[in-house]
Amino acid sequence: MWDRLIECVPNVSEGRRRDIVESIAFAADGPGRKVIDLSMDPDHNRSVITIVGEPDGLVDGVLSLAKKASELIDLNVHRGEHPRMGAVDVIPFIPVRGVTMEECIDLSMRVGERIATDLRIPVYLYEEAARRPIRRNLATIRKGEFEGFAEKISLPAWIPDFGEAKIHPTAGVVAVGAREFLIAYNVDLATADLSVAKEIARAVRFSSGGLRYVKALGFPLSEKGIVQVSMNLTNFKKTPILRVFELVKREAERRGVMVIGSEIVGTIPRQALYDVARMALQVRDFSDELILEERIEDALSANS
Amino acid sequence: MWDRLIECVPNVSEGRRRDIVESIAFAADGPGRKVIDLSMDPDHNRSVITIVGEPDGLVDGVLSLAKKASELIDLNVHRGEHPRMGAVDVIPFIPVRGVTMEECIDLSMRVGERIATDLRIPVYLYEEAARRPIRRNLATIRKGEFEGFAEKISLPAWIPDFGEAKIHPTAGVVAVGAREFLIAYNVDLATADLSVAKEIARAVRFSSGGLRYVKALGFPLSEKGIVQVSMNLTNFKKTPILRVFELVKREAERRGVMVIGSEIVGTIPRQALYDVARMALQVRDFSDELILEERIEDALSANS
Repeated sequence: MWDRLIECVPNVSEGRRRDIVESIAFAADGPGRKVIDLSMDPDHNRSVITIVGEPDGLVDGVLSLAKKASELIDLNVHRGEHPRMGAVDVIPFIPVRGVTMEECIDLSMRVGERIATDLRIPVYLYEEAARRPIRRNLATIRKGEFEGFAEKISLPAWIPDFGEAKIHPTAGVVAVGAREFLIAYNVDLATADLSVAKEIARAVRFSSGGLRYVKALGFPLSEKGIVQVSMNLTNFKKTPILRVFELVKREAERRGVMVIGSEIVGTIPRQALYDVARMALQVRDFSDELILEERIEDALSANS
Repeated sequence: MWDRLIECVPNVSEGRRRDIVESIAFAADGPGRKVIDLSMDPDHNRSVITIVGEPDGLVDGVLSLAKKASELIDLNVHRGEHPRMGAVDVIPFIPVRGVTMEECIDLSMRVGERIATDLRIPVYLYEEAARRPIRRNLATIRKGEFEGFAEKISLPAWIPDFGEAKIHPTAGVVAVGAREFLIAYNVDLATADLSVAKEIARAVRFSSGGLRYVKALGFPLSEKGIVQVSMNLTNFKKTPILRVFELVKREAERRGVMVIGSEIVGTIPRQALYDVARMALQVRDFSDELILEERIEDALSANS
């Protein structure tokens, strides 16, 4: 495996025709990067492609993918539930291992510049790569969607970060940025009372006074007759998952409700699990060198 | 890295002359295995060599190491605090990844047979590889040490598992076996009262009624003015480390004492940390596929 590892998760506006989505995804493969997952959503008519790789490999891979998507997708005929403004709608870079957020921001700028120059698609930098506070939030950028962007892009506040103030006639515009790994994490509660899940979601989420990097909603799981606090943890390094779980559990206890269990949706980085173990065991002086497999990998790579 | 990974930790009876220990350790290196650590103890006059590798690679490596040790060490002139009976004193095989305990037992038999045949050193199979209950415990086999073994080996109860009932004149005898990974784990308590650490050690350890795979002692940490419960966890799969920690903490609370922190000595397998995270977060349906890096490694190895 690569020592310096970045994940990139382009979302493309086609979730029904498998042949098209696959040829877009496969366009990203090549030296120094690899497509490891492809998830199609027909209702949203949108697909999420997961690519991992080294910085240089990823630049080439993502450009090939964006080129292929702009050739195969025409947003003028695209319909789907999910809001979208581009053939490739959004391209986030996520530091996984041996890479800083700053490097991912640099990478999003390199890719953004090339997309504007080579493909003539206007680019907005978002999240950590945003150059104006109002462009941090993807939903704010995307407002108006493809149909509204022909006009929006001509407003002074919405001049693109790269490219001309004129949408690509079929591929629209694209948001490119950098963000932390997002963990989708749900906690099930031993009650059928939806108000309990909603109250706990309000207590733990940032928007209503809770933890900085938590988004949360309460949902019913009707088949099981229970409710769930469904969360996105947007920065597990600063708001660790064990702290979130313990806060949910404490808030449930306060309401006389037990936690049945929890669920990780998608994937979770190894480091987030190491953090849970370190905190739960109160380990002093924890470091990756304590981990057998890390030591083995270090020893093997030192000599090869 | 190898998909099937075993750790082998030969202990050799030389801990003072670095050149000799290094030439013994380096004899083990070669295709399919790698020496990743070498720890010399001058007081014990004993060294611990850590080798990792695939089954076949390890057989060759361990045989080369045993041969070199038998050429360079003469137990007739060896002195040290630690009890010992052989130039290579003990050779445990430990399953790490993609390997069963049964395969490690097979491996210890293959290596034992070769040591007896090629090097003419009698071999006792111990722990999981033991053929008689009395030979499970290494201390029981080693009783009498090198000096007493010339006589002990001729007793009917102590006929070796491989080789003739006659010690090697300079290299003695060797114990070869298989065991689970051992985690050395200490918990610090906010008290100077040694009796508290000793009571908690008694409460949690197997020998006095505690958890099946825990050995424990209470120690003073005089410089810090506190005490410590020092443990060996001999099977973290069956007695998970979080359960041990929580029991120690509960027993400390019962005595009005706080846990200050804990310490992992040496290394801990990744799986043990995943287990802590799974238990602490109450994750339902946990599997390694949830872990980003495992998914990446699977995807990369599937295509290479």
